[in-house]
Amino acid sequence: MRAAVVLFSGGLDSSTCLAIARHDGFAPHALAVRYGQRHEHELTAAERIASALGTPLKVVSLDLRAIGGSALTASIEVPKDAPIGEGIPVTYVPARNTVLLALALGYAETIDAQDLYIGVNAIDYSGYPDCRPAFVEAFEKLANVATAAAVEGRATYRVHAPLLRMTKSQIVQTGVKLGVPYALTHSCYDPDVLGRACGRCDSCRLRAQGFRDAGVPDPTVYFPR
Amino acid sequence: MRAAVVLFSGGLDSSTCLAIARHDGFAPHALAVRYGQRHEHELTAAERIASALGTPLKVVSLDLRAIGGSALTASIEVPKDAPIGEGIPVTYVPARNTVLLALALGYAETIDAQDLYIGVNAIDYSGYPDCRPAFVEAFEKLANVATAAAVEGRATYRVHAPLLRMTKSQIVQTGVKLGVPYALTHSCYDPDVLGRACGRCDSCRLRAQGFRDAGVPDPTVYFPR
Repeated sequence: MRAAVVLFSGGLDSSTCLAIARHDGFAPHALAVRYGQRHEHELTAAERIASALGTPLKVVSLDLRAIGGSALTASIEVPKDAPIGEGIPVTYVPARNTVLLALALGYAETIDAQDLYIGVNAIDYSGYPDCRPAFVEAFEKLANVATAAAVEGRATYRVHAPLLRMTKSQIVQTGVKLGVPYALTHSCYDPDVLGRACGRCDSCRLRAQGFRDAGVPDPTVYFPR
Repeated sequence: MRAAVVLFSGGLDSSTCLAIARHDGFAPHALAVRYGQRHEHELTAAERIASALGTPLKVVSLDLRAIGGSALTASIEVPKDAPIGEGIPVTYVPARNTVLLALALGYAETIDAQDLYIGVNAIDYSGYPDCRPAFVEAFEKLANVATAAAVEGRATYRVHAPLLRMTKSQIVQTGVKLGVPYALTHSCYDPDVLGRACGRCDSCRLRAQGFRDAGVPDPTVYFPR
């Protein structure tokens, strides 16, 4: 089986993406980035899920707080109950997916893989510029000139974004079929100390709507209001 | 003056690049990355030079050792007195410049800059895939779709690589004219504990040759053999 690097946060989307990579016939290598998120629950979830799926997990630390500019990496409050889909949200982390794919590319070079998976989706994308098809295509082109394989004439990099045109509901339905342990996943931007979800940030609301629309019981643990 | 982000390592090339950015009329913001290099002398040099030039310096930490795959980030010996220009050297850090430019892009978004400077050069490039013109062009295209400015229709990102077609000798001559304090710069891959250069790694030899060819006294402090 060929190896593929899967960007993995322990959330609903990237966990589904990991299952799809395996379903596509790859041996997935999960890559999580500790980039100065407001909390460590994402990474705890990533470790649990990778372990449950028997996938090797690599964690890279990167202090994006030094750059700041986002509610996820700076002292800006995560919005609650705000309208979704109007402009770029403050939870946008500047150039985050560019940075994450760059790290995935570096990891891929070291394990001789040329397939990268990223769980971005454009429909529920909540205004993030680096979740759009044009972004994914531009990065794939970059990978094919940026690497040792490019110089050696053997570059066939592909950036797989299998969720790109799926709704949250379709993502949930796909994941349920592939056995994704959604109860272990974490999506909330602003959980309590126990890792329970707030239910009110964009990420929580898109996730909850996804389970509802898919007709799948929502296994998320919310903290009491 | 418009702001520009300059990737900055404290070495000869990036110090010259910083001086050129200023000469081009930008207010340079230097960005250095502590990426798990074998030594901290690079960053010490970066701090000294930024201070000497009155340029703000941001340092981001990223543990590329978790990925490894290079003599600069893993337990692989730095080659000494080896032929230069034959294949990709073990000092190539997988996808390093992709990662560095991605971080520069994120920083640029937070300070509302759209000009990035990187001191790569293709002639003395020593076999690194991510120092080639095609790489620089592909990243520029990526930047123009990856960012908030792209979504908002105001993306005019440029990746400046002013050294791209210069020889080391031309770089030194340019820097001398612009007042780059070369005595403060650090290029060696494998210095001693005092930060003195080995004189034998690829980087040392290209640098020394550059000073010789430019007819400029080499201010580098080498450790005794």
